[in-house]
Amino acid sequence: MKKGRIAVSGNIHDVIQTENGVQLLDGRTYKEQEVTWLPPVTPQTTFALGLNYADHASELSFEPPKEPLVFLKGPNTFIGHNAESIRPEEATHMHYECELAVVIGKQGKNIKQADAYDYVEGYTVANDYAIRDYLENYYRPNLRVKNRDTCTPIGPWLTSVEDVSEPMNLALRTKVNGVTTQEGTTKDMVFSIPFLIEYLSGFMTLQPGDIILTGTPKGVTKVEAGDVVETEIEGLGSLKNTIIPKLKEEDNASLNR
Amino acid sequence: MKKGRIAVSGNIHDVIQTENGVQLLDGRTYKEQEVTWLPPVTPQTTFALGLNYADHASELSFEPPKEPLVFLKGPNTFIGHNAESIRPEEATHMHYECELAVVIGKQGKNIKQADAYDYVEGYTVANDYAIRDYLENYYRPNLRVKNRDTCTPIGPWLTSVEDVSEPMNLALRTKVNGVTTQEGTTKDMVFSIPFLIEYLSGFMTLQPGDIILTGTPKGVTKVEAGDVVETEIEGLGSLKNTIIPKLKEEDNASLNR
Repeated sequence: MKKGRIAVSGNIHDVIQTENGVQLLDGRTYKEQEVTWLPPVTPQTTFALGLNYADHASELSFEPPKEPLVFLKGPNTFIGHNAESIRPEEATHMHYECELAVVIGKQGKNIKQADAYDYVEGYTVANDYAIRDYLENYYRPNLRVKNRDTCTPIGPWLTSVEDVSEPMNLALRTKVNGVTTQEGTTKDMVFSIPFLIEYLSGFMTLQPGDIILTGTPKGVTKVEAGDVVETEIEGLGSLKNTIIPKLKEEDNASLNR
Repeated sequence: MKKGRIAVSGNIHDVIQTENGVQLLDGRTYKEQEVTWLPPVTPQTTFALGLNYADHASELSFEPPKEPLVFLKGPNTFIGHNAESIRPEEATHMHYECELAVVIGKQGKNIKQADAYDYVEGYTVANDYAIRDYLENYYRPNLRVKNRDTCTPIGPWLTSVEDVSEPMNLALRTKVNGVTTQEGTTKDMVFSIPFLIEYLSGFMTLQPGDIILTGTPKGVTKVEAGDVVETEIEGLGSLKNTIIPKLKEEDNASLNR
Protein backbone atom coordinates (compact mmCIF):
# COMPACT_ATOMS: atom_id res chain seq x y z
CA MET A 1 0.00 0.00 0.00
CA LYS A 2 1.08 3.58 -0.68
CA LYS A 3 0.08 6.11 1.96
CA GLY A 4 0.46 9.88 1.86
CA ARG A 5 -0.43 13.04 3.72
CA ILE A 6 -1.97 16.01 1.97
CA ALA A 7 -3.72 19.29 2.59
CA VAL A 8 -6.90 19.85 0.60
CA SER A 9 -10.27 21.52 1.11
CA GLY A 10 -9.27 23.23 4.35
CA ASN A 11 -7.74 20.32 6.19
CA ILE A 12 -4.94 17.80 6.46
CA HIS A 13 -5.72 14.24 5.43
CA ASP A 14 -4.10 10.82 5.35
CA VAL A 15 -4.57 9.38 1.89
CA ILE A 16 -3.88 6.23 -0.09
CA GLN A 17 -2.97 5.75 -3.72
CA THR A 18 -5.72 4.22 -5.89
CA GLU A 19 -6.19 3.79 -9.63
CA ASN A 20 -8.12 7.05 -9.67
CA GLY A 21 -5.48 9.09 -7.88
CA VAL A 22 -5.28 10.24 -4.29
CA GLN A 23 -8.06 8.87 -2.07
CA LEU A 24 -9.05 10.28 1.32
CA LEU A 25 -10.26 7.95 4.06
CA ASP A 26 -13.81 9.26 3.48
CA GLY A 27 -13.66 8.12 -0.14
CA ARG A 28 -13.16 11.48 -1.87
CA THR A 29 -10.61 11.26 -4.65
CA TYR A 30 -8.33 13.95 -6.08
CA LYS A 31 -5.75 14.13 -8.81
CA GLU A 32 -2.10 14.44 -7.79
CA GLN A 33 -1.92 18.05 -9.00
CA GLU A 34 -5.04 19.19 -7.12
CA VAL A 35 -3.63 18.81 -3.62
CA THR A 36 -0.81 20.15 -1.47
CA TRP A 37 1.52 17.30 -0.61
CA LEU A 38 3.03 17.15 2.86
CA PRO A 39 5.83 14.85 3.98
CA PRO A 40 4.24 11.35 4.20
CA VAL A 41 5.64 10.96 7.71
CA THR A 42 6.16 13.57 10.43
CA PRO A 43 9.85 13.14 11.08
CA GLN A 44 10.88 12.34 14.64
CA THR A 45 14.63 11.74 14.81
CA THR A 46 16.03 11.92 11.29
CA PHE A 47 19.37 10.25 10.63
CA ALA A 48 21.28 11.00 7.46
CA LEU A 49 24.26 9.12 6.08
CA GLY A 50 27.33 10.74 4.63
CA LEU A 51 29.23 9.01 1.84
CA ASN A 52 27.21 5.78 1.94
CA TYR A 53 27.81 5.00 -1.73
CA ALA A 54 31.45 4.36 -2.63
CA ASP A 55 31.16 5.95 -6.08
CA HIS A 56 29.78 9.17 -4.56
CA ALA A 57 32.55 9.27 -1.94
CA SER A 58 35.05 8.95 -4.78
CA GLU A 59 33.30 11.74 -6.71
CA LEU A 60 33.91 14.05 -3.72
CA SER A 61 37.52 12.78 -3.41
CA PHE A 62 36.88 10.99 -0.13
CA GLU A 63 37.56 7.40 0.95
CA PRO A 64 34.41 5.42 1.77
CA PRO A 65 33.86 5.42 5.55
CA LYS A 66 34.85 2.47 7.77
CA GLU A 67 31.95 3.17 10.13
CA PRO A 68 28.68 4.91 9.23
CA LEU A 69 29.00 8.70 9.13
CA VAL A 70 25.65 9.67 10.61
CA PHE A 71 24.28 13.10 11.39
CA LEU A 72 20.87 14.37 12.49
CA LYS A 73 18.54 16.71 10.65
CA GLY A 74 15.96 19.10 12.13
CA PRO A 75 12.25 19.27 11.28
CA ASN A 76 12.67 22.71 9.66
CA THR A 77 14.22 21.22 6.56
CA PHE A 78 11.42 18.96 5.33
CA ILE A 79 8.82 19.73 2.66
CA GLY A 80 6.51 17.54 0.59
CA HIS A 81 6.17 16.57 -3.07
CA ASN A 82 5.66 19.28 -5.73
CA ALA A 83 6.95 21.98 -3.36
CA GLU A 84 9.67 24.59 -3.64
CA SER A 85 13.13 24.59 -2.11
CA ILE A 86 14.72 27.97 -1.47
CA ARG A 87 18.24 28.23 -2.87
CA PRO A 88 20.49 30.17 -0.46
CA GLU A 89 21.51 33.39 -2.18
CA GLU A 90 25.21 33.10 -1.44
CA ALA A 91 25.58 29.41 -2.38
CA THR A 92 27.71 28.40 -5.36
CA HIS A 93 27.28 24.63 -5.04
CA MET A 94 23.77 23.42 -4.32
CA HIS A 95 23.60 19.69 -5.14
CA TYR A 96 20.52 17.45 -5.17
CA GLU A 97 20.91 13.99 -3.61
CA CYS A 98 18.39 11.25 -4.43
CA GLU A 99 18.11 9.00 -1.37
CA LEU A 100 16.11 6.01 -0.19
CA ALA A 101 14.40 7.02 3.09
CA VAL A 102 13.69 4.18 5.52
CA VAL A 103 10.83 4.91 7.95
CA ILE A 104 10.86 3.11 11.30
CA GLY A 105 7.50 1.69 12.42
CA LYS A 106 8.20 0.12 15.83
CA GLN A 107 10.24 1.03 18.88
CA GLY A 108 13.45 -0.96 19.18
CA LYS A 109 16.86 -1.18 20.83
CA ASN A 110 19.67 -3.65 20.11
CA ILE A 111 17.96 -4.87 16.96
CA LYS A 112 19.82 -7.61 15.09
CA GLN A 113 20.35 -7.39 11.32
CA ALA A 114 18.22 -10.52 10.82
CA ASP A 115 15.24 -8.80 12.48
CA ALA A 116 15.83 -5.31 11.09
CA TYR A 117 13.00 -5.24 8.53
CA ASP A 118 10.47 -6.09 11.28
CA TYR A 119 11.08 -2.56 12.55
CA VAL A 120 10.57 -0.84 9.19
CA GLU A 121 7.19 0.62 8.33
CA GLY A 122 8.08 1.50 4.77
CA TYR A 123 10.11 3.55 2.33
CA THR A 124 9.89 6.89 0.62
CA VAL A 125 12.00 9.07 -1.66
CA ALA A 126 14.08 11.97 -0.33
CA ASN A 127 16.08 14.69 -2.00
CA ASP A 128 18.64 15.65 0.63
CA TYR A 129 20.02 18.85 -0.93
CA ALA A 130 23.54 19.82 0.14
CA ILE A 131 24.96 23.35 0.15
CA ARG A 132 28.40 22.04 -0.63
CA ASP A 133 30.14 25.44 -0.22
CA TYR A 134 30.21 24.87 3.55
CA LEU A 135 31.56 21.33 3.58
CA GLU A 136 34.76 21.49 5.60
CA ASN A 137 35.87 17.90 5.72
CA TYR A 138 34.99 14.25 5.81
CA TYR A 139 33.31 14.27 9.23
CA ARG A 140 29.58 15.00 9.41
CA PRO A 141 28.58 18.09 7.46
CA ASN A 142 27.72 21.23 9.37
CA LEU A 143 24.22 22.64 9.65
CA ARG A 144 24.77 25.12 6.84
CA VAL A 145 25.36 22.23 4.43
CA LYS A 146 22.44 20.04 5.43
CA ASN A 147 19.87 21.78 7.58
CA ARG A 148 18.48 24.63 5.50
CA ASP A 149 14.76 25.39 5.62
CA THR A 150 12.86 23.64 2.77
CA CYS A 151 15.94 21.81 1.48
CA THR A 152 14.81 18.22 2.13
CA PRO A 153 11.80 17.32 -0.03
CA ILE A 154 10.38 13.91 0.88
CA GLY A 155 7.55 11.80 -0.57
CA PRO A 156 5.16 11.63 -2.23
CA TRP A 157 4.25 8.18 -0.90
CA LEU A 158 5.22 5.99 2.02
CA THR A 159 5.27 2.50 0.46
CA SER A 160 4.68 -0.33 2.95
CA VAL A 161 7.58 -2.63 3.72
CA GLU A 162 5.60 -5.66 2.44
CA ASP A 163 5.36 -4.10 -1.00
CA VAL A 164 9.13 -3.73 -1.49
CA SER A 165 10.60 -7.19 -1.86
CA GLU A 166 14.21 -6.12 -2.49
CA PRO A 167 14.96 -2.75 -0.86
CA MET A 168 18.68 -3.35 -1.38
CA ASN A 169 18.15 -3.67 -5.14
CA LEU A 170 16.25 -0.57 -6.27
CA ALA A 171 17.21 1.77 -9.09
CA LEU A 172 17.58 5.47 -8.18
CA ARG A 173 17.42 8.27 -10.72
CA THR A 174 17.47 12.06 -10.71
CA LYS A 175 16.28 14.23 -13.58
CA VAL A 176 16.97 17.95 -13.80
CA ASN A 177 14.57 19.72 -16.16
CA GLY A 178 13.70 16.33 -17.66
CA VAL A 179 17.30 15.23 -18.31
CA THR A 180 18.68 12.26 -16.34
CA THR A 181 21.78 13.36 -14.40
CA GLN A 182 22.12 10.72 -11.66
CA GLU A 183 21.60 6.96 -11.82
CA GLY A 184 22.44 4.32 -9.26
CA THR A 185 21.17 1.38 -7.30
CA THR A 186 20.71 0.75 -3.59
CA LYS A 187 22.85 -2.38 -4.14
CA ASP A 188 25.87 -0.09 -3.99
CA MET A 189 25.32 1.18 -0.43
CA VAL A 190 28.43 0.83 1.74
CA PHE A 191 26.30 0.08 4.84
CA SER A 192 23.04 -1.77 4.14
CA ILE A 193 19.64 -1.00 5.70
CA PRO A 194 19.86 -3.94 8.19
CA PHE A 195 23.41 -2.93 9.13
CA LEU A 196 22.34 0.67 9.80
CA ILE A 197 19.37 -0.40 11.94
CA GLU A 198 21.58 -2.70 14.02
CA TYR A 199 24.26 -0.01 14.31
CA LEU A 200 21.96 2.85 15.39
CA SER A 201 19.76 0.78 17.71
CA GLY A 202 22.91 -0.55 19.36
CA PHE A 203 23.41 2.72 21.21
CA MET A 204 20.01 4.41 21.14
CA THR A 205 16.33 3.56 20.92
CA LEU A 206 14.68 3.84 17.52
CA GLN A 207 11.09 5.15 17.53
CA PRO A 208 8.16 5.04 15.09
CA GLY A 209 8.53 7.99 12.73
CA ASP A 210 12.31 7.98 12.84
CA ILE A 211 13.77 8.23 9.35
CA ILE A 212 17.08 6.99 7.99
CA LEU A 213 18.27 8.78 4.85
CA THR A 214 20.61 6.21 3.39
CA GLY A 215 22.89 8.33 1.23
CA THR A 216 23.18 9.09 -2.47
CA PRO A 217 25.05 7.49 -5.37
CA LYS A 218 27.39 9.20 -7.84
CA GLY A 219 26.10 11.89 -10.14
CA VAL A 220 25.41 14.99 -8.10
CA THR A 221 25.49 18.20 -10.09
CA LYS A 222 24.82 21.87 -9.37
CA VAL A 223 21.29 23.14 -9.58
CA GLU A 224 20.04 26.70 -9.93
CA ALA A 225 16.89 28.66 -9.17
CA GLY A 226 14.23 27.70 -11.69
CA ASP A 227 15.41 24.12 -12.08
CA VAL A 228 12.85 21.34 -11.69
CA VAL A 229 14.40 18.33 -9.96
CA GLU A 230 12.76 14.90 -9.94
CA THR A 231 14.21 12.17 -7.73
CA GLU A 232 12.82 8.72 -8.43
CA ILE A 233 13.20 5.31 -6.85
CA GLU A 234 12.00 2.10 -8.48
CA GLY A 235 8.63 1.06 -7.09
CA LEU A 236 8.36 4.01 -4.71
CA GLY A 237 7.54 6.91 -7.00
CA SER A 238 8.84 10.21 -8.26
CA LEU A 239 9.39 13.23 -6.02
CA LYS A 240 9.22 16.55 -7.84
CA ASN A 241 10.77 19.76 -6.55
CA THR A 242 11.31 23.25 -7.92
CA ILE A 243 14.18 25.45 -6.82
CA ILE A 244 13.35 29.08 -6.18
CA PRO A 245 15.59 32.05 -5.35
CA LYS A 246 16.02 33.28 -1.79
CA LEU A 247 13.06 35.31 -0.61
CA LYS A 248 13.55 38.96 0.30
CA GLU A 249 14.65 39.56 3.89
CA GLU A 250 11.60 41.77 4.44
CA ASP A 251 9.29 38.86 3.70
CA ASN A 252 10.90 36.73 6.38
CA ALA A 253 11.17 39.41 9.02
CA SER A 254 7.57 40.59 8.66
CA LEU A 255 6.19 37.49 10.35
CA ASN A 256 7.88 38.53 13.55
CA ARG A 257 6.57 42.07 13.85
CA MET B 1 8.76 32.86 37.07
CA LYS B 2 10.00 29.29 37.21
CA LYS B 3 7.93 26.76 35.29
CA GLY B 4 8.28 22.99 35.22
CA ARG B 5 6.65 19.85 33.93
CA ILE B 6 6.02 16.89 36.20
CA ALA B 7 4.13 13.62 36.42
CA VAL B 8 2.17 13.06 39.62
CA SER B 9 -1.07 11.42 40.67
CA GLY B 10 -1.64 9.72 37.32
CA ASN B 11 -1.07 12.63 35.00
CA ILE B 12 1.36 15.13 33.49
CA HIS B 13 1.12 18.69 34.76
CA ASP B 14 2.62 22.09 34.10
CA VAL B 15 3.77 23.53 37.42
CA ILE B 16 5.28 26.67 38.88
CA GLN B 17 7.71 27.15 41.74
CA THR B 18 6.23 28.69 44.89
CA GLU B 19 7.46 29.10 48.46
CA ASN B 20 5.71 25.85 49.35
CA GLY B 21 7.29 23.81 46.57
CA VAL B 22 5.85 22.68 43.26
CA GLN B 23 2.39 24.05 42.51
CA LEU B 24 -0.01 22.65 39.91
CA LEU B 25 -2.30 25.00 37.98
CA ASP B 26 -5.24 23.73 40.08
CA GLY B 27 -3.49 24.84 43.27
CA ARG B 28 -2.29 21.48 44.61
CA THR B 29 1.24 21.68 45.95
CA TYR B 30 3.90 18.97 46.22
CA LYS B 31 7.41 18.76 47.54
CA GLU B 32 10.23 18.43 45.00
CA GLN B 33 10.89 14.82 46.01
CA GLU B 34 7.25 13.71 45.71
CA VAL B 35 6.98 14.09 41.94
CA THR B 36 8.54 12.73 38.77
CA TRP B 37 10.27 15.56 36.98
CA LEU B 38 10.08 15.71 33.19
CA PRO B 39 12.13 18.00 30.96
CA PRO B 40 10.63 21.50 31.45
CA VAL B 41 10.33 21.90 27.68
CA THR B 42 9.57 19.29 25.02
CA PRO B 43 12.59 19.71 22.82
CA GLN B 44 11.96 20.51 19.18
CA THR B 45 15.25 21.08 17.35
CA THR B 46 18.06 20.87 19.89
CA PHE B 47 21.35 22.52 19.00
CA ALA B 48 24.47 21.76 21.00
CA LEU B 49 27.76 23.62 20.91
CA GLY B 50 31.14 21.97 20.84
CA LEU B 51 34.10 23.69 22.51
CA ASN B 52 32.27 26.93 23.31
CA TYR B 53 34.44 27.71 26.35
CA ALA B 54 38.10 28.33 25.54
CA ASP B 55 39.34 26.73 28.77
CA HIS B 56 37.42 23.52 28.02
CA ALA B 57 38.75 23.42 24.44
CA SER B 58 42.24 23.72 25.88
CA GLU B 59 41.50 20.94 28.39
CA LEU B 60 40.73 18.63 25.43
CA SER B 61 43.85 19.89 23.57
CA PHE B 62 41.83 21.69 20.91
CA GLU B 63 41.98 25.26 19.62
CA PRO B 64 38.81 27.27 20.28
CA PRO B 65 36.64 27.27 17.14
CA LYS B 66 36.56 30.22 14.70
CA GLU B 67 32.92 29.53 13.86
CA PRO B 68 30.36 27.81 16.12
CA LEU B 69 30.67 24.01 16.07
CA VAL B 70 27.00 23.07 16.23
CA PHE B 71 25.42 19.64 16.14
CA LEU B 72 21.86 18.40 16.67
CA LYS B 73 20.57 16.09 19.36
CA GLY B 74 17.58 13.72 19.18
CA PRO B 75 14.63 13.55 21.58
CA ASN B 76 15.70 10.10 22.85
CA THR B 77 18.48 11.58 24.93
CA PHE B 78 16.51 13.87 27.28
CA ILE B 79 15.36 13.10 30.82
CA GLY B 80 14.22 15.30 33.70
CA HIS B 81 15.54 16.27 37.13
CA ASN B 82 16.25 13.55 39.73
CA ALA B 83 16.34 10.86 37.05
CA GLU B 84 18.88 8.22 36.10
CA SER B 85 21.31 8.20 33.20
CA ILE B 86 22.41 4.81 31.92
CA ARG B 87 26.20 4.54 31.62
CA PRO B 88 27.13 2.58 28.46
CA GLU B 89 28.79 -0.65 29.55
CA GLU B 90 31.78 -0.38 27.25
CA ALA B 91 32.56 3.30 27.92
CA THR B 92 35.81 4.30 29.64
CA HIS B 93 35.30 8.07 29.56
CA MET B 94 31.83 9.31 30.47
CA HIS B 95 32.07 13.03 31.27
CA TYR B 96 29.35 15.30 32.65
CA GLU B 97 29.00 18.75 31.08
CA CYS B 98 27.14 21.51 32.93
CA GLU B 99 25.54 23.77 30.32
CA LEU B 100 23.24 26.76 30.14
CA ALA B 101 20.26 25.78 27.96
CA VAL B 102 18.55 28.62 26.08
CA VAL B 103 14.92 27.91 25.16
CA ILE B 104 13.47 29.72 22.13
CA GLY B 105 9.98 31.17 22.62
CA LYS B 106 9.11 32.74 19.26
CA GLN B 107 9.57 31.82 15.61
CA GLY B 108 12.32 33.79 13.93
CA LYS B 109 14.65 33.98 10.94
CA ASN B 110 17.53 36.42 10.34
CA ILE B 111 17.37 37.66 13.92
CA LYS B 112 19.90 40.37 14.77
CA GLN B 113 22.03 40.14 17.91
CA ALA B 114 20.38 43.28 19.30
CA ASP B 115 16.95 41.61 19.12
CA ALA B 116 18.06 38.10 20.12
CA TYR B 117 16.67 38.05 23.67
CA ASP B 118 13.18 38.92 22.32
CA TYR B 119 13.14 35.38 20.91
CA VAL B 120 14.17 33.67 24.15
CA GLU B 121 11.50 32.22 26.43
CA GLY B 122 13.88 31.36 29.23
CA TYR B 123 16.76 29.27 30.52
CA THR B 124 17.31 25.94 32.15
CA VAL B 125 20.20 23.73 33.27
CA ALA B 126 21.45 20.82 31.17
CA ASN B 127 23.97 18.09 31.78
CA ASP B 128 25.10 17.12 28.30
CA TYR B 129 27.01 13.90 29.09
CA ALA B 130 29.68 12.91 26.57
CA ILE B 131 30.93 9.37 25.94
CA ARG B 132 34.35 10.67 25.11
CA ASP B 133 35.73 7.28 23.96
CA TYR B 134 34.14 7.83 20.57
CA LEU B 135 35.34 11.38 19.94
CA GLU B 136 37.31 11.21 16.70
CA ASN B 137 38.28 14.80 16.13
CA TYR B 138 37.46 18.46 16.41
CA TYR B 139 34.45 18.44 14.11
CA ARG B 140 31.02 17.71 15.59
CA PRO B 141 30.98 14.62 17.79
CA ASN B 142 29.35 11.51 16.45
CA LEU B 143 26.07 10.12 17.73
CA ARG B 144 27.77 7.61 20.03
CA VAL B 145 29.38 10.50 21.93
CA LYS B 146 26.35 12.71 22.31
CA ASN B 147 23.07 10.99 21.52
CA ARG B 148 22.73 8.15 24.02
CA ASP B 149 19.34 7.39 25.54
CA THR B 150 18.92 9.15 28.94
CA CYS B 151 22.26 10.98 28.73
CA THR B 152 20.98 14.57 28.64
CA PRO B 153 19.25 15.50 31.91
CA ILE B 154 17.58 18.91 31.71
CA GLY B 155 15.71 21.03 34.27
CA PRO B 156 14.31 21.22 36.83
CA TRP B 157 12.91 24.68 36.00
CA LEU B 158 12.49 26.86 32.97
CA THR B 159 13.26 30.34 34.33
CA SER B 160 11.64 33.19 32.36
CA VAL B 161 13.93 35.47 30.38
CA GLU B 162 12.72 38.52 32.41
CA ASP B 163 14.04 36.94 35.60
CA VAL B 164 17.62 36.55 34.36
CA SER B 165 19.12 40.00 34.03
CA GLU B 166 22.63 38.91 33.02
CA PRO B 167 22.55 35.53 31.23
CA MET B 168 26.13 36.11 30.05
CA ASN B 169 27.32 36.42 33.64
CA LEU B 170 26.10 33.34 35.50
CA ALA B 171 28.19 30.98 37.62
CA LEU B 172 28.11 27.29 36.64
CA ARG B 173 29.07 24.49 39.01
CA THR B 174 29.09 20.69 38.99
CA LYS B 175 29.27 18.52 42.09
CA VAL B 176 29.96 14.79 41.99
CA ASN B 177 28.83 13.03 45.16
CA GLY B 178 28.76 16.42 46.89
CA VAL B 179 32.28 17.51 45.86
CA THR B 180 32.66 20.46 43.49
CA THR B 181 34.56 19.35 40.37
CA GLN B 182 33.68 22.01 37.78
CA GLU B 183 33.30 25.78 38.14
CA GLY B 184 32.95 28.41 35.48
CA THR B 185 30.95 31.36 34.27
CA THR B 186 28.91 32.00 31.15
CA LYS B 187 31.09 35.11 30.67
CA ASP B 188 33.71 32.80 29.20
CA MET B 189 31.65 31.55 26.26
CA VAL B 190 33.48 31.89 22.94
CA PHE B 191 30.20 32.64 21.11
CA SER B 192 27.58 34.49 23.17
CA ILE B 193 23.85 33.76 23.27
CA PRO B 194 22.97 36.69 20.96
CA PHE B 195 25.73 35.66 18.54
CA LEU B 196 24.45 32.08 18.41
CA ILE B 197 20.84 33.17 17.81
CA GLU B 198 21.92 35.47 14.96
CA TYR B 199 24.17 32.76 13.53
CA LEU B 200 21.63 29.92 13.59
CA SER B 201 18.65 32.00 12.47
CA GLY B 202 20.76 33.32 9.59
CA PHE B 203 20.36 30.05 7.73
CA MET B 204 17.32 28.38 9.28
CA THR B 205 14.12 29.25 11.10
CA LEU B 206 14.13 28.98 14.88
CA GLN B 207 10.91 27.69 16.45
CA PRO B 208 9.36 27.80 19.93
CA GLY B 209 10.72 24.86 21.91
CA ASP B 210 14.06 24.85 20.12
CA ILE B 211 16.92 24.58 22.61
CA ILE B 212 20.49 25.80 22.37
CA LEU B 213 22.94 23.99 24.67
CA THR B 214 25.69 26.55 24.93
CA GLY B 215 28.69 24.41 25.87
CA THR B 216 30.57 23.64 29.06
CA PRO B 217 33.56 25.22 30.83
CA LYS B 218 36.74 23.52 32.01
CA GLY B 219 36.58 20.82 34.64
CA VAL B 220 35.03 17.72 33.11
CA THR B 221 35.96 14.49 34.87
CA LYS B 222 35.03 10.84 34.54
CA VAL B 223 31.94 9.57 36.30
CA GLU B 224 30.94 6.03 37.15
CA ALA B 225 27.77 4.09 37.86
CA GLY B 226 26.52 5.05 41.31
CA ASP B 227 27.75 8.64 41.12
CA VAL B 228 25.32 11.43 41.90
CA VAL B 229 25.96 14.44 39.67
CA GLU B 230 24.49 17.88 40.36
CA THR B 231 24.83 20.61 37.74
CA GLU B 232 23.91 24.07 38.98
CA ILE B 233 23.58 27.47 37.38
CA GLU B 234 23.24 30.69 39.38
CA GLY B 235 19.61 31.76 39.62
CA LEU B 236 18.31 28.81 37.60
CA GLY B 237 18.58 25.91 40.02
CA SER B 238 20.28 22.60 40.58
CA LEU B 239 19.76 19.58 38.33
CA LYS B 240 20.41 16.26 40.05
CA ASN B 241 21.18 13.05 38.21
CA THR B 242 22.25 9.55 39.21
CA ILE B 243 24.32 7.34 36.95
CA ILE B 244 23.27 3.70 36.76
CA PRO B 245 24.89 0.73 35.03
CA LYS B 246 23.69 -0.51 31.66
CA LEU B 247 20.48 -2.51 31.91
CA LYS B 248 20.43 -6.14 30.87
CA GLU B 249 19.84 -6.73 27.16
CA GLU B 250 16.85 -8.94 27.98
CA ASP B 251 15.12 -6.04 29.65
CA ASN B 252 15.42 -3.90 26.57
CA ALA B 253 14.48 -6.53 24.05
CA SER B 254 11.41 -7.73 25.97
CA LEU B 255 9.44 -4.60 25.07
CA ASN B 256 9.49 -5.64 21.46
CA ARG B 257 8.20 -9.19 21.79
